[in-house]
Amino acid sequence: VIVAEQASTAKKPLTDVQGTQDTRGVALQHAGVRHVDMPIQVLQKDGKSQTVSALLSMSVGLPHEQKGTHMSRFVVQLADWSQHKVFSVQLREFLQELCQRLDAPSAAVDLEFKYFLSKEAPITKVAAPMGYDVRMQGRLNQGVIEQTLTVKVPMANCCPCSKAISEYGAHNQRALTELVVQLDPNAEASSVVWIEDLIALADESASCPVFPLLKREDEKWVTERQYNNPKFVEDVARDASVALRNKSGILGFTVTVEAFESIHGHNAWASYSEPVSL
Amino acid sequence: VIVAEQASTAKKPLTDVQGTQDTRGVALQHAGVRHVDMPIQVLQKDGKSQTVSALLSMSVGLPHEQKGTHMSRFVVQLADWSQHKVFSVQLREFLQELCQRLDAPSAAVDLEFKYFLSKEAPITKVAAPMGYDVRMQGRLNQGVIEQTLTVKVPMANCCPCSKAISEYGAHNQRALTELVVQLDPNAEASSVVWIEDLIALADESASCPVFPLLKREDEKWVTERQYNNPKFVEDVARDASVALRNKSGILGFTVTVEAFESIHGHNAWASYSEPVSL
Amino acid sequence: VIVAEQASTAKKPLTDVQGTQDTRGVALQHAGVRHVDMPIQVLQKDGKSQTVSALLSMSVGLPHEQKGTHMSRFVVQLADWSQHKVFSVQLREFLQELCQRLDAPSAAVDLEFKYFLSKEAPITKVAAPMGYDVRMQGRLNQGVIEQTLTVKVPMANCCPCSKAISEYGAHNQRALTELVVQLDPNAEASSVVWIEDLIALADESASCPVFPLLKREDEKWVTERQYNNPKFVEDVARDASVALRNKSGILGFTVTVEAFESIHGHNAWASYSEPVSL
Amino acid sequence: VIVAEQASTAKKPLTDVQGTQDTRGVALQHAGVRHVDMPIQVLQKDGKSQTVSALLSMSVGLPHEQKGTHMSRFVVQLADWSQHKVFSVQLREFLQELCQRLDAPSAAVDLEFKYFLSKEAPITKVAAPMGYDVRMQGRLNQGVIEQTLTVKVPMANCCPCSKAISEYGAHNQRALTELVVQLDPNAEASSVVWIEDLIALADESASCPVFPLLKREDEKWVTERQYNNPKFVEDVARDASVALRNKSGILGFTVTVEAFESIHGHNAWASYSEPVSL
Repeated sequence: VIVAEQASTAKKPLTDVQGTQDTRGVALQHAGVRHVDMPIQVLQKDGKSQTVSALLSMSVGLPHEQKGTHMSRFVVQLADWSQHKVFSVQLREFLQELCQRLDAPSAAVDLEFKYFLSKEAPITKVAAPMGYDVRMQGRLNQGVIEQTLTVKVPMANCCPCSKAISEYGAHNQRALTELVVQLDPNAEASSVVWIEDLIALADESASCPVFPLLKREDEKWVTERQYNNPKFVEDVARDASVALRNKSGILGFTVTVEAFESIHGHNAWASYSEPVSL
Repeated sequence: VIVAEQASTAKKPLTDVQGTQDTRGVALQHAGVRHVDMPIQVLQKDGKSQTVSALLSMSVGLPHEQKGTHMSRFVVQLADWSQHKVFSVQLREFLQELCQRLDAPSAAVDLEFKYFLSKEAPITKVAAPMGYDVRMQGRLNQGVIEQTLTVKVPMANCCPCSKAISEYGAHNQRALTELVVQLDPNAEASSVVWIEDLIALADESASCPVFPLLKREDEKWVTERQYNNPKFVEDVARDASVALRNKSGILGFTVTVEAFESIHGHNAWASYSEPVSL
Repeated sequence: VIVAEQASTAKKPLTDVQGTQDTRGVALQHAGVRHVDMPIQVLQKDGKSQTVSALLSMSVGLPHEQKGTHMSRFVVQLADWSQHKVFSVQLREFLQELCQRLDAPSAAVDLEFKYFLSKEAPITKVAAPMGYDVRMQGRLNQGVIEQTLTVKVPMANCCPCSKAISEYGAHNQRALTELVVQLDPNAEASSVVWIEDLIALADESASCPVFPLLKREDEKWVTERQYNNPKFVEDVARDASVALRNKSGILGFTVTVEAFESIHGHNAWASYSEPVSL
Repeated sequence: VIVAEQASTAKKPLTDVQGTQDTRGVALQHAGVRHVDMPIQVLQKDGKSQTVSALLSMSVGLPHEQKGTHMSRFVVQLADWSQHKVFSVQLREFLQELCQRLDAPSAAVDLEFKYFLSKEAPITKVAAPMGYDVRMQGRLNQGVIEQTLTVKVPMANCCPCSKAISEYGAHNQRALTELVVQLDPNAEASSVVWIEDLIALADESASCPVFPLLKREDEKWVTERQYNNPKFVEDVARDASVALRNKSGILGFTVTVEAFESIHGHNAWASYSEPVSL
């Protein structure tokens, strides 16, 4: 164990350099910590919570006259939440606390983690956990909050052109649907958007969902379903977009679909954002 | 060599599935190819060009009534440019050609590559190439072009607080300054922003630039310079922002500085965007 | 919800293609699944366990006469362990079960995850979790087991040359010590190597450890300690190697130290393996 | 431009700290630089060369009595080769020069880059460059050289089980064949293994190769060929292994095949190494 015997007798005062005046006239939108790993609790739609291994970025707005922020306070708050609180897509409480601890006009947080859902095979119903990349971002500025939820859902994607022109077979491949949703902070409880909702929406837009565990009768079903349901990346993007248009609790969204083409070394992609001015 | 002897006698017509009508009412902003590797020529500020290994994304806008785009045409154009043209930060010609080939209302391109500059050591002047991550993005929509240039510049970053409170030494570390610049498409030739300009601007904002090759007398200079010039990530972000404010040929910018702290396992960061509404 | 209404009336039998005979005379060392995400429990040195988000690879040896393995059985076992068992560096039980489920002569597993330890600041003793990259690999072949434990520990690294030649200051930077240890499967309980042991060993080899949370008096101590304790990557590699040589429960090791130099855009590194024939 | 006006009047001598004596008794196998970006020339099979953007690691063995190596000399040699020499899979000359410059008993180099080949579509013969991940590693120790060439080749992979049990269609996906080949340093010129040879060998082992550019008649051919040629990852690994067994100029190899399953979020893989004791 390393002990602190080498600490010198303090001759210099422990000056608060961060607290000195700045004269450049640049009010930074973000000053904080990034690439922080932390185990946290995330609220599930079923009311339980799960432990995830999060990668975080946190920041506060820094007024133009203040030289620096106090980096250690971010980790103090995060370590406290890691032990005692549960994160949900509603990040207001976390951001308000950050504004207070740092005496800041705005605060932002960005969390990325692997989120697990138990998923059943279509015929045999055998189940196993499946991991999804999830990102939750929030910014509170002068009391106004913006919150974004991103979910990446792998799927099977079967090419309509290949099916139409070939005597047999059709090239298909794994693809990834990314849904980025701007949440309505004033949504009623019944309209709150959950990670689980976005995964289900993406699965329904695919040629066929993918599964963690498939027995032979499941594999037959999956093969035939994707062949019966060919879609370009453009089709998947449009189907997911139509579904999101009809979903409440959302102020805007971006759908991006990327297929790891089995006929090319590169990918095909399509993307749609609404409102269109985004 | 694999020969085509297995091709079946075509019984099905080679239908143009992409060309059929779509009724969902979703005009996609992007449909195209992604993660395409291609060697290309990039124009340097000195008028010469260098071969870079680019990772590209390309897309066109897809009108709501059109089912799919023609993915092969992107690669046809890219392969042609790879052989016969030189890319610069001015992407209008490339995007106009893409709109024409795909008969599309809009087109976008995103290029990422390692760009090399020869850099001299501060005292001995020994030189070697140094690689920088560069990204060029452009979108042409109904004749209006938006162009963004991103450059990531590694640097040395020395902590003012650590220097102020310690009897000797100061913790320092490698950091990364990312400059994202929205280019003015109507800039005069004398105001065009070059990759080289942004690297120089980032170097001047650092505690000390980093170098590919240093002899002992250079290392002494670099060590003393960063100790004499301590800066928080907030300081570097502000100094780079002030410099970009005074630069012509730019409609807006984002500066992000991230320090790989030598006292933590996580990073410190600061970011500033202008215009502030961005 | 997607229901299975499209499943065709089975006309084809659900043939076991994997079970057919192979004649190429190639007994594969590995056939299995890769890049599987799964939440698992990992045993801590203090006897408790923590939930980690693991990325796994699993495989079995495939005899030359067997065409394929049964991919779903890997996930069945993994999902079961995810819910009911605790992983430790001792992987024999997991691998024996895999050999049995797959009726295989050998089995291998590779787990990577972020592992968290609470770490105290050197002076103020404020604590927060810190995440470390950990990898556990095992292979059981004809009853003989090989087990490897890898831990990556970030640290502060101060350059002795820079300190010696400069009037003031010394360049330092974050560095990463990777310890790969081949575990003795016959080690007594008192000699078992824990993740915690390797992190402590790496911390003691550094110019100074890094911390998740530091107050100003801690930052002063850390700054002065690394300045008082300059080490080349070669020194850190040697100090860690000498410590590992003296550690029981180990059959061999590789130490790799990589410094993210604050004077260059590239890194310095050193590596040592024992036994030397490795 | 940053000028060197801040250099202090040298009071300290520019000591060669690296040259001092070490007493720990640890002769490091590797001390050097890592993650160096450099444009280099690579020799093609057709006798021409191409410019690639390489990521390099270089090192020398460090005798137990020597404290440190001279990091700048690696970059001096690399910058020189970048301008004046052509790299091939034969790395002896580069490594001998490294031993001499560093006065070292052994030297190693590891180069990774994207390598481009023009590839024709199967029916229309339209061509475009396609990029492959290539790695060349070499180590010269007391005059004995070991050289390894690694090539990663994307391909189409169609599942035999899915085809056998489904009424129509078969799931397929992009997969990656990685060939790692230990080169015979005494191979005659006619037996030298080229990057191009390994790409061709991997393509022949696939259900179907992938292409940079396909017109509709090509897509039909590719779809039908992969359906006619279903292979498990185990099959691809075995076919590539049999082909490598019959290839001269090789001392050993590892084939690893990984399929990005379109029915799962995780991958299937198989691997074979020869000699088996590897």
